[in-house]
Amino acid sequence: MTGLRERKKRQTRQAIAEAAMRLFAERGFEAVTVNEIAAAAGVAKVTLFTYFPTKESLVLSSVADDDVAKVVAGRRPGQSPLDALRRHYRAFAADPGDVEPEALITMMRIIVESPTLVAGVNGIQYSERLALTQALTGIDDCRIDDLTASLMAAQISAAVLTLKETFFNRLASGTPLPEAGRRLTEDVDLAFDLLERGFGDRFTR
Amino acid sequence: MTGLRERKKRQTRQAIAEAAMRLFAERGFEAVTVNEIAAAAGVAKVTLFTYFPTKESLVLSSVADDDVAKVVAGRRPGQSPLDALRRHYRAFAADPGDVEPEALITMMRIIVESPTLVAGVNGIQYSERLALTQALTGIDDCRIDDLTASLMAAQISAAVLTLKETFFNRLASGTPLPEAGRRLTEDVDLAFDLLERGFGDRFTR
Repeated sequence: MTGLRERKKRQTRQAIAEAAMRLFAERGFEAVTVNEIAAAAGVAKVTLFTYFPTKESLVLSSVADDDVAKVVAGRRPGQSPLDALRRHYRAFAADPGDVEPEALITMMRIIVESPTLVAGVNGIQYSERLALTQALTGIDDCRIDDLTASLMAAQISAAVLTLKETFFNRLASGTPLPEAGRRLTEDVDLAFDLLERGFGDRFTR
Repeated sequence: MTGLRERKKRQTRQAIAEAAMRLFAERGFEAVTVNEIAAAAGVAKVTLFTYFPTKESLVLSSVADDDVAKVVAGRRPGQSPLDALRRHYRAFAADPGDVEPEALITMMRIIVESPTLVAGVNGIQYSERLALTQALTGIDDCRIDDLTASLMAAQISAAVLTLKETFFNRLASGTPLPEAGRRLTEDVDLAFDLLERGFGDRFTR
């Protein structure tokens, strides 16, 4: 019974999200009303709001589901934060099966065409960067001052964002998902090697 | 004659920018019209648009005036990009005399309260990051692949943003400008040391 109810909930959530994406893709985020989305998904407006508390969350809830601070906080004893993050993104690259390239490309287009959503993504990235700063500051046996923790969090976040952009651009230009995943594995190692070693000595002049 | 005309132009531009900031601060970016700003500054709307081509540019033109790619491209022969940037920000920290803390705090508040402006700042930061990537890729004698250049540009941009945030937060919490400048000098060295050496070895576990 509970299993059935849970499945029904997931289906309703999915139906709402898909209706929203379809309408936003057709007419732009700003032009579509929540009423129209509820009608297209065949649910009451009040039901829509129990799944998605704001219109923005119809798009942004899936942007916010990669929690780097949680990966750092939940790492194995003795494992460094960078190693935990490297393995986290390697694991994703080895099995990116849940990614639907078409849907991802549509979502990115909806976001970049809406200042409200761009600002929303910005806010999510800022919160995640603060949470990562906190996670790095709280590491036992490491005397890291606040600015150093902020700089590390900013650099890690910037590297992860660059990896995601590169992965997305490959998919958008037609690279099949399995190949994009394989190349992401190499990219993840390059990025984390660079974070670990710095790059001052890469410039001869 | 030309000198007089140039001074008049600067004064007009300044008057428009100040009227815009005053009105935006009072009622928010979205609620104020360009007509109202022109009237408050005592100029015709067409004159306003010769100085500021869009409403957004009334706020964002001053955000876009720190061009890191230009600093890298214009460095001395034999100087590394990181050294050129370190000296650029050290020079600012040693003499931040042009900064007006009150005006800066007001501008930041106007920006964060407007999704349009947050999205605009985001776009500027993205363009600057791409320009820096280009500048790093083009360095003679350095065989840097595209992803490495993107990662370096992203990390440098993230570090500079963190320095600016820290400097701004000190001013916003009442630190006098000369002291904020002195502390920024130390912060700049910490940030660029971290970029040069990486930080993998900072974590004992």
